[in-house]
Amino acid sequence: MKRLPVQSSRMTYPVVVGADVLAQTGEQLQEIGIKTGTKIAIITDTTVAHLPFVNQLTESLESAGYPFQTLVVPAGDASKSLDVAYGLYQDLISFGMRRQDVVLALGGGVVGDLAGFVAATYLRGVPFIQAPTTLLSHDSSIGGKVGINLPQGKNLIGAFYPPRAVLYDLNTLSYLPERQWVNGMAEVIKHGIIADANLFETLAANPLTVCPPADELEPILTAAMRVKIDVVEGDEREANLRQVLNLGHTIGHAIEQRSNYSLGHGEAISIGMALEARLAEKRGLLTAAHRTLITSVLAAHGLPTQAPADDWHEIKKLIEVDKKHKSDAWTFVLPTAIGQVQIVNDIRPQEVEDVVRESMKGV
Amino acid sequence: MKRLPVQSSRMTYPVVVGADVLAQTGEQLQEIGIKTGTKIAIITDTTVAHLPFVNQLTESLESAGYPFQTLVVPAGDASKSLDVAYGLYQDLISFGMRRQDVVLALGGGVVGDLAGFVAATYLRGVPFIQAPTTLLSHDSSIGGKVGINLPQGKNLIGAFYPPRAVLYDLNTLSYLPERQWVNGMAEVIKHGIIADANLFETLAANPLTVCPPADELEPILTAAMRVKIDVVEGDEREANLRQVLNLGHTIGHAIEQRSNYSLGHGEAISIGMALEARLAEKRGLLTAAHRTLITSVLAAHGLPTQAPADDWHEIKKLIEVDKKHKSDAWTFVLPTAIGQVQIVNDIRPQEVEDVVRESMKGV
Repeated sequence: MKRLPVQSSRMTYPVVVGADVLAQTGEQLQEIGIKTGTKIAIITDTTVAHLPFVNQLTESLESAGYPFQTLVVPAGDASKSLDVAYGLYQDLISFGMRRQDVVLALGGGVVGDLAGFVAATYLRGVPFIQAPTTLLSHDSSIGGKVGINLPQGKNLIGAFYPPRAVLYDLNTLSYLPERQWVNGMAEVIKHGIIADANLFETLAANPLTVCPPADELEPILTAAMRVKIDVVEGDEREANLRQVLNLGHTIGHAIEQRSNYSLGHGEAISIGMALEARLAEKRGLLTAAHRTLITSVLAAHGLPTQAPADDWHEIKKLIEVDKKHKSDAWTFVLPTAIGQVQIVNDIRPQEVEDVVRESMKGV
Repeated sequence: MKRLPVQSSRMTYPVVVGADVLAQTGEQLQEIGIKTGTKIAIITDTTVAHLPFVNQLTESLESAGYPFQTLVVPAGDASKSLDVAYGLYQDLISFGMRRQDVVLALGGGVVGDLAGFVAATYLRGVPFIQAPTTLLSHDSSIGGKVGINLPQGKNLIGAFYPPRAVLYDLNTLSYLPERQWVNGMAEVIKHGIIADANLFETLAANPLTVCPPADELEPILTAAMRVKIDVVEGDEREANLRQVLNLGHTIGHAIEQRSNYSLGHGEAISIGMALEARLAEKRGLLTAAHRTLITSVLAAHGLPTQAPADDWHEIKKLIEVDKKHKSDAWTFVLPTAIGQVQIVNDIRPQEVEDVVRESMKGV
């Protein structure tokens, strides 16, 4: 079990990573100063609620003397809504939650974002614990971004609200369906490309196409989380540095939306990373060898690296509405080596069009 | 015109107080680094929207080159709801508001709390400007507390979200109905009792029963705001010190609720301050002379100082649900002199019952 400290503007919080973390939830809460008797509202979803590790969590709370209540929302992105948040506020009031009581998110990114938003706003903010149960949430659980969707778009409502702790039990990942595992690996690989050549090389030598035992996974996810932690510590409120985490996301997010979310987030950003590597190569920022290596490691994990046939103009429109793009000089995060990226502010739409069109044709 | 700096955890923001501040909104935005061309969403209510100073604000924005849109919500506390917030999110999206664009609250506490909550959560937070137009909001506009109500209670949903600036145009106060003026004076007097004997003595010598000219009002409100600023700078997230601002509120808030809000907030806390002064006197913390002085200055401003006839047990229940009271030893902020208060943690319910019952009987 590893304990990684994360420095946020308000306080330092630990990320606890390893096997059987949930069975020690009570001790972990004591460790961060949550007093016995504090109420814990566990927010989870219909997928997670029936998995065996939920009992490990609740038994640990019980034996440590924390009264708790489990609030279950429907699985899926549609739960990130003001309506579901409103229902949770009602539940917290019924449970008698006060300002010192705790919201604990047990689940993937949807549950973390939703429960985090509720924790950030209920009584102007109550302590919040993230207990991620997906590979993708090794990423989303760190950094304090929480939010819900509006009909017009994702995460339009939210806050920067750091958790008091992240309890990441790697045993929970063995329950993930294969496709979700593979999607999560895209963000792990991304963290390697951004800032950790060793992590990337480990994955290149030994692709993780299925979930390995927790002891094997721990050093890999610890390394991936360290990359994320270093970035968000430098830039909690997403002013600048944090942009590097958008590697693969500018093109990837547009492709994801165009697929109407039939592409998973990891699949879409895998395509995005492959195309943005190509963009970097054409600019002379990345060698052809490194570009090929990036693409082949993604492919070795069962991730797509080619853009599906589509109308470029529709993709372009979506890139334009992206928050970062205010003019015809687009901002992209481009890889310049394995473990190194650069923010480039003067990408012309034509350059992006070229790599997207080539990729669609399979060039 | 005075410019008071307030230090918050994230940045320092100015409180600009004086005559004709709204006519200089454009310059003030430039001063704090809001670039020309930034969109300004003015959120106001049906009472304020038709007052003449709105044009001064919009003309100033226009001539300084800030595109703006005015969003009007119904006047009254019912607008502090998730439904109204949801409508405002839709309006901000329609207006094309991005992360650097500004929400400006033009109005009293309701508008400030609602617009502040929307600003705190839209796109995970956009810059927020408070332009208070009531006397009571000399208090609520400082300190970063924003929030909306649920059917179960007030301000159950919210955030700590400091504004980027407070633009307090004292000319706007001349439009206040007399009763609202008097209610606002209760908080001004409170700030004197808490920490500014000079302010209190000025009001004792020359009670402000109606709104005076801006140049006469400026030093008084500047002093009152300084008290609030000093407190919130020391304790932004309401951990401890900020409790002193609750002078009069523990009893006052219960009486306000019992009146079904037929008592104004200032009227209720005036009664609360009179009774809490009596509680302090009985404890030997405050002299009878000081207690009489507090009551007479409140009365000189047309504020009530006697509890309306009511059932003590109902009042007690409301005090018990107050966030601060976890047991039979209640916490009260008590005056110990003019300009000085103390947090007392061991008040027995019987002591409070005594002063409430005596006050009801007119003792």
